[in-house]
Amino acid sequence: MKIRTENGIKEMRAVWMENDNVVMIDQRYLPNELKIFVARDHSDIHYAIKEMVVRGAPTIGATAAYGVAQAAIKGSDIGEAARHIESARPTAYDLFHAVKCMLSADNGDLLKAAEAYANDVVDKCRSIGEHGAELIDHGARILTHCNAGALATVDHGTALAPIRAAHCKGREVFVFVDETRPRLQGMRLTAWELNNEGIPHAIIADNAAGHFMQRGEVDMVIVGTDRIAANGDIANKIGTYEKAVVARENGIPFYVAAPVTTYDPHTQSGMDIPIEERPPSEVLDMEGASVYPPGSTARNPAFDITPASHITAFITEKGIFTPGKMGNMF
Amino acid sequence: MKIRTENGIKEMRAVWMENDNVVMIDQRYLPNELKIFVARDHSDIHYAIKEMVVRGAPTIGATAAYGVAQAAIKGSDIGEAARHIESARPTAYDLFHAVKCMLSADNGDLLKAAEAYANDVVDKCRSIGEHGAELIDHGARILTHCNAGALATVDHGTALAPIRAAHCKGREVFVFVDETRPRLQGMRLTAWELNNEGIPHAIIADNAAGHFMQRGEVDMVIVGTDRIAANGDIANKIGTYEKAVVARENGIPFYVAAPVTTYDPHTQSGMDIPIEERPPSEVLDMEGASVYPPGSTARNPAFDITPASHITAFITEKGIFTPGKMGNMF
Repeated sequence: MKIRTENGIKEMRAVWMENDNVVMIDQRYLPNELKIFVARDHSDIHYAIKEMVVRGAPTIGATAAYGVAQAAIKGSDIGEAARHIESARPTAYDLFHAVKCMLSADNGDLLKAAEAYANDVVDKCRSIGEHGAELIDHGARILTHCNAGALATVDHGTALAPIRAAHCKGREVFVFVDETRPRLQGMRLTAWELNNEGIPHAIIADNAAGHFMQRGEVDMVIVGTDRIAANGDIANKIGTYEKAVVARENGIPFYVAAPVTTYDPHTQSGMDIPIEERPPSEVLDMEGASVYPPGSTARNPAFDITPASHITAFITEKGIFTPGKMGNMF
Repeated sequence: MKIRTENGIKEMRAVWMENDNVVMIDQRYLPNELKIFVARDHSDIHYAIKEMVVRGAPTIGATAAYGVAQAAIKGSDIGEAARHIESARPTAYDLFHAVKCMLSADNGDLLKAAEAYANDVVDKCRSIGEHGAELIDHGARILTHCNAGALATVDHGTALAPIRAAHCKGREVFVFVDETRPRLQGMRLTAWELNNEGIPHAIIADNAAGHFMQRGEVDMVIVGTDRIAANGDIANKIGTYEKAVVARENGIPFYVAAPVTTYDPHTQSGMDIPIEERPPSEVLDMEGASVYPPGSTARNPAFDITPASHITAFITEKGIFTPGKMGNMF
């Protein structure tokens, strides 16, 4: 991804390996500071995933893969490292998929396997961008939720990849960026990526998405996903479900962009996907300010389930598939 | 309303008259500080309405009525004061209604007219509470958006009045409080009122409302409104439309609580109601913290329109009316 710095534009990934360290952009400090987090062992990797130094299913997967490789390089118990890394978060299928890939790879060259895993993610996202760009007309106004950008997917993004690709082809696009409470990944990260690329956009309160859809100001919605169930239901950042319902109400196409590996054939339906409830403090603490009454608490589900019936199509590295035709993805 | 202070529980209203000052709870500082704002002339009243020292259509109406009375007491030009006060915000019908009432009242006793206006609002809200409580079963789990509480309506509330009344009758209720970005009136004000009353509740990100509805954890939605159009469409705080669409999708009753004066027969449909766009800074500045990339901006519609088709019934001081039977309200 392009990153505008004081010294010009740099090309960077969300996570990579430097010697025997796993190095990543610390997404908790964006957009104000470009800080780098260095993981020296699987405890650091576990922390980075759990505390959301990195987030986004594909980036979590690549970080986990590098973490297993690092354990091998450092002579740690690979099985123990894998189990610890895997336990960091419960919802993203990529995390389990990446660890499984690494455990079945040639033990002699796990670094090569991890690099291949990360490169494969990036290649897939590039392809998602190419396929998805075909859906984006000149002048399109696109709404997106959370950050399914390069930060979430090592590079390019899933939901943002088609937008990047359409922009590169010279098509005018405008992006409504849901701020995405409680963690504001839209305001912090998606807006930051769009700024770096020079793509016109406006941040909106999550509450305002429906209004702009109702007024005919949104032509399409593109989101990412953390897991696709066998029946085509998806888990994604809390709020995705509301946007899908309102998009359908207004006849607006609702696309889910994801690599095929996000598909989990072992989970029958979205209702079988465990939904992580994160700490109330994420809702209650507003960037360090306390504006809730003492005595109140919060509930904080991090994901919700959007039923297949509300998804127009999946944008994958293998092409565009309606939920009924997902079998053709393989 | 009950307010828990260091010196025990006090009974207060959102706005009242003290000598020739209009005095109000400064809602910008809640829930952290209970500050009182004193308006000494119609410029202060205009400021208080525009800058949301007070908000909520009925409280705005009462504040405007007191403002016109104050102008009379102070010997100011009543017409000029009325015009200035009326221009403070564009969406709430109560503001125009209150000013009109005052201009047609007996010039000799405008203070009495303003007190009558405020008392009338309070009486209506008490009745809304009585009627609405009939809809609330023991154990009901209710979702509300924004603050349609005592702060918004001088006392009791509209959406919160039935909840208060049911609680007083000894029924167990649980309230999901949408935080209500961008200004967080749910987290700040509704949660504060519920705490003062000792009513169990949880604050949620606006994005999470759909999830709890989908999971069967919400039995009903009650919101207030700033204006009801002739066809039964309503304008209310941004995000109300999304909640209504998702409630309907899940077969959850969606009630709008409001005094009959909120009905504006001169506005044919919701699409004729002007939607105020407020400054981008309300979205971008998170309680003083800046977490958006330089170069990004925001769009900030303050209200949206919920179509009559999505409203189960109106809870008014005259009883419960479906949108099709609104003619019976008068």
